[in-house]
Amino acid sequence: MKLASRRSGSRDGELLIVSRDLKRAMSAKPWASHLQGALDNWSALAPALHEQYELLNADRVASFGLDSTSLMAPLPRSYQFLDASAYLNHVELARAARGEALPPDLHHNPLMYQGLSHRFEAWNHSIPAEFSQWGCDFEAEIALISADIQRSWRRDNPGEPFRLAMLINDVSLRELIPAEFAKGFGFLQAKPACSCSPVAITLDELGQHWRDHKVDLALHSTYNGARFGSPNAACDMEFDYGRLLEHGAKTRELCAGTVLAAGTVSNRDPATGSSCIAEKRMRQKLAGEAMMSFMAAGDTIKIEMFNDSGRSLFGAIEQRVGP
Amino acid sequence: MKLASRRSGSRDGELLIVSRDLKRAMSAKPWASHLQGALDNWSALAPALHEQYELLNADRVASFGLDSTSLMAPLPRSYQFLDASAYLNHVELARAARGEALPPDLHHNPLMYQGLSHRFEAWNHSIPAEFSQWGCDFEAEIALISADIQRSWRRDNPGEPFRLAMLINDVSLRELIPAEFAKGFGFLQAKPACSCSPVAITLDELGQHWRDHKVDLALHSTYNGARFGSPNAACDMEFDYGRLLEHGAKTRELCAGTVLAAGTVSNRDPATGSSCIAEKRMRQKLAGEAMMSFMAAGDTIKIEMFNDSGRSLFGAIEQRVGP
Repeated sequence: MKLASRRSGSRDGELLIVSRDLKRAMSAKPWASHLQGALDNWSALAPALHEQYELLNADRVASFGLDSTSLMAPLPRSYQFLDASAYLNHVELARAARGEALPPDLHHNPLMYQGLSHRFEAWNHSIPAEFSQWGCDFEAEIALISADIQRSWRRDNPGEPFRLAMLINDVSLRELIPAEFAKGFGFLQAKPACSCSPVAITLDELGQHWRDHKVDLALHSTYNGARFGSPNAACDMEFDYGRLLEHGAKTRELCAGTVLAAGTVSNRDPATGSSCIAEKRMRQKLAGEAMMSFMAAGDTIKIEMFNDSGRSLFGAIEQRVGP
Repeated sequence: MKLASRRSGSRDGELLIVSRDLKRAMSAKPWASHLQGALDNWSALAPALHEQYELLNADRVASFGLDSTSLMAPLPRSYQFLDASAYLNHVELARAARGEALPPDLHHNPLMYQGLSHRFEAWNHSIPAEFSQWGCDFEAEIALISADIQRSWRRDNPGEPFRLAMLINDVSLRELIPAEFAKGFGFLQAKPACSCSPVAITLDELGQHWRDHKVDLALHSTYNGARFGSPNAACDMEFDYGRLLEHGAKTRELCAGTVLAAGTVSNRDPATGSSCIAEKRMRQKLAGEAMMSFMAAGDTIKIEMFNDSGRSLFGAIEQRVGP
C-alpha cells in the first residue's frame, strides 16, 4: 500500500491512497482523515485501506490523477524522529572530515539522536538559501515509521514493529555541527527539517528486498543532474532497523508514527558514490583532489529508489536551494 | 486561565478549563477537543476559553469538582520538547560530579537538547522501578509552551511567544548520561518521559512574577516528605526563556505546542537547596559528606510552586517510584 498526504486546511493534511504506479489516488477520508490518525488506530483501519488500495490498482474505484505538487510529506508532523548513523563508513568519513575521534564502542552501540519531527517537508520543498551560509548538505536516508512499541522492546519480539517506509533528505548544516557536537547535547541548529518522498509505502511493497530488518536496494542520489551515489542500503549497514529500534526503546516506549532513520546510506566501495557532500569531500581530500563546495542557491538534489522493474517505489525527492 | 486534560478515548485526552483555585472544572469540548487543537488555533479560540474561565471562577457556568486522578498531562503529547540548561550552577555541579570539563562558551551559547515529547506523563505517574538500576533522579523544572514561532525569531520581536507554563519533572537516568554524553548525539536512553503538573496556566496567572522572560518565584521540591530545595527560578538564570527560544529557532520554525524548558532550577546559594539529587550529591561530596542515593522503589518526589497568597499555581507533581 502507498500513502500520501495532500494539502488541506489542516496541519496534518488529508490522507490519500496512491496507486502502485504513483499515477492515481483517492481520498482515505471515509476511513482516516490523516496519517497520524491511521497510525494511532492502524490495526482497525489498515485492512480497509489495503482493500481500497487493491481496488484502486485494479481501477475498480473512483480515483483521480495524482497531482504531486499538491502533496505534503506523507506524515507532515510526527511526535518523534530518531535518526541513527548505522552506516559506519559514513561515520568514519564524517569524523575524519571533522578531525574527531571515533566513538569508543562504535560496533556495539548505535549513534542516535532525537531530531526535528514537528514538520516534515514535502518532496519538492525549497531549501532556504540562508542555509548555504552554514555549509548546507543533503543526506539521503531511508526512514521507517513504527507501530506502538513497548519500552524494553527486543529485536526478537514477535510481530512486525514497522508500518511504513519512506525516503528522507536529512538537510544538514555542516558548519554548525562541530560546536553542537562539542557540547554533547546533540544536534539542534545543525539539523533543520527533513524532506520526504511523495509517498510512504508498506513493507510488502518492498517484496524480497525487505529482509532481516534491512532494505536491500540501491538509494540513488542525483546532484545537479549528475549521478552522485547509489549505495545499497543493506550493504555495510552495521545496525539493522530492528537493532536501532531496540536501542531507541531501551528506556521509553515509542509512539505509533515514530520516524526511525538509519542515517546517510554509505558503502565502503567508493564506486557506489556518496549520499551526502561531506563524504564525497572527505574522499576527495584523501585522494588529494580539490574538495567540492556545499550547496548554494540553485543547486538541486534528487533522491529515489527503484524496484527490480525500474519503477520508482516512493517517487522522488527533488529539492532546489532557493530562492 | 488554567487548563488540564482528562483521560478519554483519545491519546490527546479531553481539554478541561480549571478554576483558579484548582477545585472545579468544565469541559472545553464545545471550543476545542484537546489542547494541541487549541494551540494550533489559539488566536481564534483563546478569547472564548478565557471567557468561560472567568465564568467558571465566578461560578456562573455549569462545572464539576476536579478529580485530579482523572488527569493526564496538560499536553499529553507534543511535537517538540526542547530542554535547556539555563541555570549554570546546575551545569557546573553536574559536570563536576561527572568529572567533565565545562563547555567552552558556557555564558554565550545555551545548552539545549531535543527530548522525548510524544508522551508527557500525568502528575501522579509511577516512576518505573526498573529505572532505579540506572541512577534514577528527578529534575524540577519550569516549561513554557510556545505559539508558532518563525525561523530566526529574535528575542526583541514584538508579541508574546509563549501561551502557557507548567511544571515538569525531567526524570533522568544518571548512569546512562556519561556514555551518551561522550557520543555527542545528546540524551536518548538517559531521558525517559517527563511528568507534568496537573494544570498548565497562561502567563497572566503569574502576574508580576512573569517578567523579563523569567518566572520570579521559588520552585519547591519535597523528597520523601522533607524539604529538598526551593530555589528562585529567576535567580541565577543565565539565559531567559526569550533567549532560549531564540536559540531553538535559529534554523527551524517552532510549532505551536513546543515545550521549552530551562533545565533544573538551581541557585548558587546552597541554603536554597537543590532541584535534583545529582546536585545535592555533588554538594555533599564537596563538603566531605557521604553522598545520598538516587531514587529507589518507594521514594517520593513532590514539586510545586505557590503564589504570594500561598496558593498552588499549577497543582503538585507527586510521583513515587513503583512498582
